[in-house]
Amino acid sequence: MTHSMLFGRRAGLDSGLLSPVRAGTDVEAVLSDEAWLQAMLEAEAALARAQARLGTVPTAAALAITAAARAGRLDLTGLARTAREAANPVVGIVEEFTAVVAEQDAEAAEFVHRGSTSQDILDTAAMLVASHATVLILDDLDCCAAALTRLARDHRDTPMAGRTLSLHAVPTTFGLKAAGWLKLVYDARRRLEALMDGGLPAQLGGAAGTLAGYLEYAGHGWGQEGPSQGADRYAEALCDTYADELGLSVPVLPWHSLRTPVVDVAAAMAFLTGALGKIAVDVQSLARTEVAEVVEPAAAGRGASSAMPHKRNPVLSTLIRSAALQVPLLSAGLFQCMLTEDERSAGVWHAEWQQLRECLRLAGGAAHTAAALLEGLTVRPERMLANLALTGGQVVSEKIAAALTPALGRAEAKRLLSRAAAEAEQRGCSLGEVLAALPEVTSRLPAPQLTALLDPTRYTGAAGHLVDLALRSDNP
Amino acid sequence: MTHSMLFGRRAGLDSGLLSPVRAGTDVEAVLSDEAWLQAMLEAEAALARAQARLGTVPTAAALAITAAARAGRLDLTGLARTAREAANPVVGIVEEFTAVVAEQDAEAAEFVHRGSTSQDILDTAAMLVASHATVLILDDLDCCAAALTRLARDHRDTPMAGRTLSLHAVPTTFGLKAAGWLKLVYDARRRLEALMDGGLPAQLGGAAGTLAGYLEYAGHGWGQEGPSQGADRYAEALCDTYADELGLSVPVLPWHSLRTPVVDVAAAMAFLTGALGKIAVDVQSLARTEVAEVVEPAAAGRGASSAMPHKRNPVLSTLIRSAALQVPLLSAGLFQCMLTEDERSAGVWHAEWQQLRECLRLAGGAAHTAAALLEGLTVRPERMLANLALTGGQVVSEKIAAALTPALGRAEAKRLLSRAAAEAEQRGCSLGEVLAALPEVTSRLPAPQLTALLDPTRYTGAAGHLVDLALRSDNP
Amino acid sequence: MTHSMLFGRRAGLDSGLLSPVRAGTDVEAVLSDEAWLQAMLEAEAALARAQARLGTVPTAAALAITAAARAGRLDLTGLARTAREAANPVVGIVEEFTAVVAEQDAEAAEFVHRGSTSQDILDTAAMLVASHATVLILDDLDCCAAALTRLARDHRDTPMAGRTLSLHAVPTTFGLKAAGWLKLVYDARRRLEALMDGGLPAQLGGAAGTLAGYLEYAGHGWGQEGPSQGADRYAEALCDTYADELGLSVPVLPWHSLRTPVVDVAAAMAFLTGALGKIAVDVQSLARTEVAEVVEPAAAGRGASSAMPHKRNPVLSTLIRSAALQVPLLSAGLFQCMLTEDERSAGVWHAEWQQLRECLRLAGGAAHTAAALLEGLTVRPERMLANLALTGGQVVSEKIAAALTPALGRAEAKRLLSRAAAEAEQRGCSLGEVLAALPEVTSRLPAPQLTALLDPTRYTGAAGHLVDLALRSDNP
Amino acid sequence: MTHSMLFGRRAGLDSGLLSPVRAGTDVEAVLSDEAWLQAMLEAEAALARAQARLGTVPTAAALAITAAARAGRLDLTGLARTAREAANPVVGIVEEFTAVVAEQDAEAAEFVHRGSTSQDILDTAAMLVASHATVLILDDLDCCAAALTRLARDHRDTPMAGRTLSLHAVPTTFGLKAAGWLKLVYDARRRLEALMDGGLPAQLGGAAGTLAGYLEYAGHGWGQEGPSQGADRYAEALCDTYADELGLSVPVLPWHSLRTPVVDVAAAMAFLTGALGKIAVDVQSLARTEVAEVVEPAAAGRGASSAMPHKRNPVLSTLIRSAALQVPLLSAGLFQCMLTEDERSAGVWHAEWQQLRECLRLAGGAAHTAAALLEGLTVRPERMLANLALTGGQVVSEKIAAALTPALGRAEAKRLLSRAAAEAEQRGCSLGEVLAALPEVTSRLPAPQLTALLDPTRYTGAAGHLVDLALRSDNP
Repeated sequence: MTHSMLFGRRAGLDSGLLSPVRAGTDVEAVLSDEAWLQAMLEAEAALARAQARLGTVPTAAALAITAAARAGRLDLTGLARTAREAANPVVGIVEEFTAVVAEQDAEAAEFVHRGSTSQDILDTAAMLVASHATVLILDDLDCCAAALTRLARDHRDTPMAGRTLSLHAVPTTFGLKAAGWLKLVYDARRRLEALMDGGLPAQLGGAAGTLAGYLEYAGHGWGQEGPSQGADRYAEALCDTYADELGLSVPVLPWHSLRTPVVDVAAAMAFLTGALGKIAVDVQSLARTEVAEVVEPAAAGRGASSAMPHKRNPVLSTLIRSAALQVPLLSAGLFQCMLTEDERSAGVWHAEWQQLRECLRLAGGAAHTAAALLEGLTVRPERMLANLALTGGQVVSEKIAAALTPALGRAEAKRLLSRAAAEAEQRGCSLGEVLAALPEVTSRLPAPQLTALLDPTRYTGAAGHLVDLALRSDNP
Repeated sequence: MTHSMLFGRRAGLDSGLLSPVRAGTDVEAVLSDEAWLQAMLEAEAALARAQARLGTVPTAAALAITAAARAGRLDLTGLARTAREAANPVVGIVEEFTAVVAEQDAEAAEFVHRGSTSQDILDTAAMLVASHATVLILDDLDCCAAALTRLARDHRDTPMAGRTLSLHAVPTTFGLKAAGWLKLVYDARRRLEALMDGGLPAQLGGAAGTLAGYLEYAGHGWGQEGPSQGADRYAEALCDTYADELGLSVPVLPWHSLRTPVVDVAAAMAFLTGALGKIAVDVQSLARTEVAEVVEPAAAGRGASSAMPHKRNPVLSTLIRSAALQVPLLSAGLFQCMLTEDERSAGVWHAEWQQLRECLRLAGGAAHTAAALLEGLTVRPERMLANLALTGGQVVSEKIAAALTPALGRAEAKRLLSRAAAEAEQRGCSLGEVLAALPEVTSRLPAPQLTALLDPTRYTGAAGHLVDLALRSDNP
Repeated sequence: MTHSMLFGRRAGLDSGLLSPVRAGTDVEAVLSDEAWLQAMLEAEAALARAQARLGTVPTAAALAITAAARAGRLDLTGLARTAREAANPVVGIVEEFTAVVAEQDAEAAEFVHRGSTSQDILDTAAMLVASHATVLILDDLDCCAAALTRLARDHRDTPMAGRTLSLHAVPTTFGLKAAGWLKLVYDARRRLEALMDGGLPAQLGGAAGTLAGYLEYAGHGWGQEGPSQGADRYAEALCDTYADELGLSVPVLPWHSLRTPVVDVAAAMAFLTGALGKIAVDVQSLARTEVAEVVEPAAAGRGASSAMPHKRNPVLSTLIRSAALQVPLLSAGLFQCMLTEDERSAGVWHAEWQQLRECLRLAGGAAHTAAALLEGLTVRPERMLANLALTGGQVVSEKIAAALTPALGRAEAKRLLSRAAAEAEQRGCSLGEVLAALPEVTSRLPAPQLTALLDPTRYTGAAGHLVDLALRSDNP
Repeated sequence: MTHSMLFGRRAGLDSGLLSPVRAGTDVEAVLSDEAWLQAMLEAEAALARAQARLGTVPTAAALAITAAARAGRLDLTGLARTAREAANPVVGIVEEFTAVVAEQDAEAAEFVHRGSTSQDILDTAAMLVASHATVLILDDLDCCAAALTRLARDHRDTPMAGRTLSLHAVPTTFGLKAAGWLKLVYDARRRLEALMDGGLPAQLGGAAGTLAGYLEYAGHGWGQEGPSQGADRYAEALCDTYADELGLSVPVLPWHSLRTPVVDVAAAMAFLTGALGKIAVDVQSLARTEVAEVVEPAAAGRGASSAMPHKRNPVLSTLIRSAALQVPLLSAGLFQCMLTEDERSAGVWHAEWQQLRECLRLAGGAAHTAAALLEGLTVRPERMLANLALTGGQVVSEKIAAALTPALGRAEAKRLLSRAAAEAEQRGCSLGEVLAALPEVTSRLPAPQLTALLDPTRYTGAAGHLVDLALRSDNP
C-alpha cells in the first residue's frame, strides 16, 4: 500500500537502469509493453480485415477497428493489472479495445476479436515484435561483420600469441582471431535470417486450435459449396489472409501447444549472444593491463569509474558479456516450455512471454553494443609482438621439437624441449639460451637455423590462408 | 530511430503486461527502477551520515545530502541510458546527484560519494530492496500458512485418492495434502527469515575492497592513535556505522567478488517458488474438469476466457506456476555469477542485477497470488469420495494383498491381486466383483470382511496423525 | 580409500541405474566411454591415413596405426584417472596408444598424433559419436512418425474434449492432437537431418588453430610450389582428406574456440526432447484415472509398482518426461560454453564433454522410448465421448454464444452464456437445461436447434481438414 | 544391435573419461551405481530391522535380510535395464533381492520390502549416498581452509594490483584475496555442515505417504491400545526406528512430493562449486603468461600438453572451473523438480536421480581438486610488485586525487587526474612524470610527497586488518 504509493509512478518499473546493455536501444523500444500492446491491437485489426476480405465481417467494421488500433488509447498500466484476473492481458485488452472502437462505431465493436481467443492474439503479437527486433539485430550484425572483415583483412599477418589454458601456446595472428569472430557472426546472422526467411508464423486456431469459433461466427459466409468443404476452404483462406495482412507466414497447424516458433527464436538468440559473448571475453583477455593488445573504442566519458580517475574500462565488452551470461538460461526456460500440456497449459504458456522478451532484448542490446565495440576497436600490433617475446622462445617449443624429431624421434624431441623449457623457467633465461648450450641441439641445428626457428613471427602456420578462406566464404 | 519515436514513452517499457503474476503488487513496486534508484541514494546518504558521525565529513553536508536523496529529483530514463557509458548506473547517478545537492548546498556536494565506488552503492541498494521485498513476501507467507493450517485441520479426515504416476494409488486425505503444502510454506518461510535474521549485509569496500579510498579521504580524522591502528579502527567503525544507518548487517569482508549474500537471496527465492509451484500443480491436478475436487476462489471477472463464456480458469495457480518455472533459472544464473574474476568482474557482476530483481519480483508475485489462492480455495469432499470409488476398489488393492499375505505369501498375494485387477479392467467391472468370485479369496476373506477391506475411506493409514504432527510443529 | 576399495569395481560407476530412460539402449552404447575412446582412436588413425595420402607419413605407419586403433587394447579406467593430470584424456591416450602401436611397429609409433593437439582428437571424436547417436535417433523418430501418422489418420474424426488451463474448453479431435504431435516429430527430425546434411565437421587446427604443427611435421612434403603456397595447399588438403577419412564435413576454420557445431547438436537435442516431452505430458494428462482416454502399451511386467498390485503405470511417458526435464539445462550449459576465452579456454571446453554426452544420451533414450509408446498407444474413443458429455454442454458454450450473437450482440450473448453456465454449475444440472428455460434463448433457438447446437461432436471446426493438411506435408 | 555388441562391455559406460574432475576420487566411488544399489539394499535391511525391533517382522528374517544386503550379489547392469519397465530401479531390485534372500532363507524373503514402496527405498538411498559424499567433501574443505589460512597469513602484507573490469584499479594484497577465498570456503563449509547437522532425513511413507501399507502389514502388532492410537504410535515408532538404523534424521512428514531435502543438497553443492569456481578463475587470471603472479603446484607430468613441450597448464583450476560451470544448472534442474504433481509425479521425481548424483559428484571432484590446488599454490610476490609498477602510478590515481581534493574540490581533482592519466597513456610515460610537470599539482604536492603518494605499496588501505578479521572469525 505505502510502497505502491511511494513508488507509484509506474514509469519507473523498468527504464533499463539495471540492464544497461539494452537501455535506450531501438530493440528495447520495439519490445516494450507498449510495443507488445500495439502488436496485439494489430493482430486484432488484421483479423478483422482478413474476415472482411472473406466477407464475414463488414468492411466498414474492419476499417473502424483498424483505425482504432492504437496502443496509446488504452490504459497500459491498468491492463497489466487486469491481466492478473485472466492470467493473460488479452481478455482485458479486448474489453477495453472494444469500448474504444464502440466510441467511434458501435456496430464495428461487435466484430472485435470475433471467433478468436487470447492466445491467437498474444502469440501473433509475439511473432510481430520478434520480427521487428530481428530486423534491427540483423542491421547491427551487418555492422559487426563489416568491421570484422576489415579487422581480419588489415591484420591478416599480424602475429600474436595464441593462448590456451591461459598460457602462451604457439603464435597465431590477430587476423585469424578476427576471422573466427567473423565466422561466428556469420553463423549467427544465418540463424537469424533463417527465422525471417522461413517467416515467423501468425497464430490462428481459436479456443482450442480447431478454428471452430471462426467458422461458427462466419456462419455460412464461406460460399456455395457443401458445408464441410466450404468450411475447410474458409478456414484455410482465413489463415492465409490473416497472415498476409500481418506479413507473417502461414503455419501448417495452429501452434498453441506446439511451440516450435518460440524456441526457434530462443535458440537463435542464444546462439547470437554466445557468438558475441565469445568476442567479448576475448577482447577482455586482450585488454587486461598486462596484455594491452587491444583497446575498446574511446568516447567522451565512456568507461569512467566513480572512484578511479585513470580508468577507461572496457565497458562495451562488459555489457555484451553481461547479456551473454543471461540469455542461454532464458532460452532454456523457453525450451522447457515446450512441455505444455493439453491444448493450452495452465502456466507454461504464461511463463514464455517475459522470457521471450528478455531473450530478444538482451540479444538486441548485445548486438548493438558489439557493433560499437568492433567498429572502434583499437589493435596494437606492437604490444602483440612484445608479448610474443615474453616467453623467450617457449611459444615455439612445438616447432623446435618438430625440427628435432627426425633426428631424435617424436617422444625424445618433446622430452628434450620440456626439460629445456623447465630449465629456462627455473633459471629465468630464454629458451634459446638453454638450447644453444645443449649439444644434442647444436649438433643438429646450427645457430642461424636455431635463431630462425625461435622467431615466433615465422610460426603462424596457415593462419593467413585461413583468413582468406573465411573472408571468401561470406556466409560460411 | 523511428522505433524509438513510435514507442518513445519509456513508461511503457515494462508495466507488468507480460508478467501478470506480479503486476500491480507491492513487491513489484519496491523492486522498480525508481525503488532501486531511491535505495542507491539512501546508500549515498547513509555513507555521508556515517562519515559525519565519525567526524570526517561535516554534519551539515551529511544532512544536506540526506535531504536531497530523493529519486524523484533525478532523471531515471536518462540515467538508464547513461549507464551504458560506464556499464553501471552509479557513475551517472553520482554525477547527477552531486549536481542536485550542489543546487542546495555547494559545499555539501563535495562530500557526495566520498572515497566510494559504484559497487558499494549498487550492492548496498540491492540488499535494501531485497530486504523490503522479503518483508512483504513474509507477510504473504503468513497468510498462506494460516490458510493452510485451517485447510489441514478442517480436512484432517477427508478421504481422497492418493495419486502416483498420474493414477490412483491408495487413499490419502486432503488434510495430509494440505499439511504437506504447509510444511513447504514453513520451510520457505524459515529460509526467508534466515535471510532477515542474519541480516543482509551492507557493502563497503572502496575501489577494490581495501577501503583505501575511504581512509584516504578521511585524512587523519580518525583520532589520536598510531596511524595504522587508527586507520584500522576507522575502517571498522565506518563499516559498522554505515550498516547501522541502513539497518543492514556488517559483513566480515567487503563482498565485491564474494557473492554469498546474492546467492543466499537467490536460493531462498528458488525454494519459495518451488514450494508454491508444487501447490499450484497440485491444485491444477485436482481442478481438472474430470477431477473437480477443488475450485479456485471465485471473484467477479476472474478466470474469464476471451473466447469461452463458461470458463472459470484456475488463474491463480496458473500465475504461480508461471513464476515457478522461471525462478530456478534466474537463481542458477546468479549462482553462476559467483565465478567473478578479480576484484570486480567485467560483466559477471553486471549480469546479476536484472536477474536478482526478476527472481525477487516473481517470487513476490507468486507469494501474493498464493495467499489469495489458499485463502479462498474451495474443497469438495463429495467429489473426492466419488472419485475414490471410480476404480471399483483397485485403489485398495495393496490392502487386500496385505490381508492375503499371511495365507498366500507376499509375492503370490500380489500376483493374485494384479491378475484380478487386470481382469476387472478388462471386464469393466469392479475389483470387488472379481475377488468375490475367486475361491482363494473367499476362502480366506468372508464377504463382510472383503467389503470392509474394499472401503477406501478405511485405508488412510496414519494420515490423520501425520496432519496432527505437522500442525504441532509450527516450524517443522 | 576405504570407499574406493568398497566400491572399487569401476564397472559400477554408471550402468544406467539412475537413468532408466536410456539404460540398455543402443544410443547409450554409442555414447559410452568406450565408444568415445574408440572414436578418439579413429581420429588418430584417420589423421595418420590422411597424412599418408598426402605423403607426409609412411603408408605402412598409417596402416599400423589404424590396425592398432582398438579401444579394447587400452586401459579405460586408468586413462580416466590420468586425464586429471592433463585436464583432458587425450594426453594419456596418445601416450598409451603410442605404446600399443610401438609394440607392433616401433617406427609407426613415431607417427602417432603427429603435429596434432588434444582438442583436434577430442572434438573430432565428439562429432563422430554425435553422428552415430543421431543416426540411431532418426530411426526411432521414423517409427514415431509412422505411428503418429496412423493415429492421426485413424482418429481424424474422433471427438474429444479440447482442454485449456486444465478445463474443458471446446471439442477437438484426437486426430488433430496426434497430428500436432506428428508436426513436432517432423520438426525435430528436420533439425536432426540438418545436422547430418550439413555434416558435423571434423576438427583440425593444431595447437592453437593455425595448423602450424601439421605443416612443420610435414616438412616440405607438400610439393613443388613456393613454400607458402604449398603450405596453404597442404593445409587445405589435410583438412579435406582427414574429414573424408572420417566421413565428417570440412570446416571453414578450425573451431577450437568457435563452438557452433556443439551448440547445433545441443539445440537439436533440446528441441527433440521438448517435442517428445510435449507428447509425454499429453499422454499423462489423458491417462489419468479420471480421464482414461489413452492407455500406454502393455507389456509383461511393465508399469508395475513395488507396492500396489493393480498399478499399470504410464512408465514410457514418465521416462520421456524425465529426459525432457533435463536436456534443456544441459543444452543451456553448452550454449554458455560458447564464451570460451582465447584459443582454448581453461575450463570451458572441459565442461562441454559430459554435458554433450548426457544431452545426446537422454535425447536418444527419449526417442527410443517414444517409439515404443506411440507404436502401442491404446486410444479409447468411448471414454473421450463420455468425458465430452461431462460438462452437460458447457464445452460448446462458445458455439451457442456465436449462435445468439446476431440477435443479442457479441458481448451480451457471451454474458448470457456465462450466467447460464454459472447457474448450471451451481444447480448441478446441464447447461442445456438452464438454456431451455431461458426465454431469450428459446425465442431464438427452437428446441431441436438448441439440441443440435449442444452436441459436442458437431463442433470440431476444421479439425479434420487440419489433420489432412498435416499429413499431406510430410515435412511441414 | 551392432552398436550394443560393438561396445557391449557395460563397464565402459562411464569411467570418468569425460569428467576428469572427479575421475578416480573417493566421492565418485561413493556415488557410483554400485554405491546407490548398496544404499538401497541397506534401506531395505534397515526397514526389516526396524520392523523387527517393533515386533512386526521376525528378528531372524531381519537378520537374514541384512546379511544378504550386498550389492555384489545382484546383477547391476541387468537391473539398470529392468528399471525401464517400472521407470525406477527398485521394482527390479526388490524382486532380485527377494530371490537372493530366499536362497538362504525362504521365510525371510517374505519380509523383504514389507509394506514399502519404491520411493521410500530410493529416496533413503539418495540421502545415504549424499551423506557419504558430504562427509568426504567436508574433509577436502578442511584442507582448503587450512591452506588458505596459511596463504592469507603469509601474504597478509604482500602488495599486488587490485583488478576491476580487467584493468588495474588500486593496490590490494594477496593476503586479502586469500582471505576472501577463505571466507567463501567457510561459507560453503557451513552450508554443508548444516546439511549434516540437521541430518538428511530418511524417507518412509508407503505407497502414497500415509504409511498405510506398513500399518496393514504390521497387522495389530502394535500393542494394547485402541486401534487408531496404536497405529499412530506404531507409525511414529517405525519412522524413528528406521531412521535410527540408518543414521539419518526423522522427517516430520514423508517427503515423497515435498522435496526440501533434495534441493537443500543441491543448493549447498551449487554454493560450493561457486565458491571454488571463484578461486579457480582468480588463479587463472593470475597465472596468465603476462601476469605470472601465481603458479599451480607442479607434479610429474601434470599440466602437460599433447602438442607443446613447454606447457605446464593450470589444470587444477581448469578442472574446478569445468565443474563449477555445470553444477548450477544441475541444481536448477533439481529446484525445478519441486514442481512434482500429486503424491508422486510421473517423470519429475525420475529426473532427480542423475542430476543429484552429478551435482554431488562434480562438487566432490571440485573440492578434492581445490585441496590439491591450494595446498601447493606458488605465490610470486616479486611478480606482483613488478606488475604493480606497470601503469607508472596510475594504479594510485585515486589516492592522488584524494590528496588534491582539499585544494581543488573532488570533481576538479578527479578531472585533473583523468586528464593526466590520458596524457601519460598517450605519451607512453608514467603518470608521475606528467604530474610532476603540472603546476597545479606541484604547488600543492612537493616532489617528495608526490613520490610517496605514487608508491603503490603504501596504498593498501585496511587490507591487512581485514585479513586479521577474516582469520579471527573461523566461521565468519
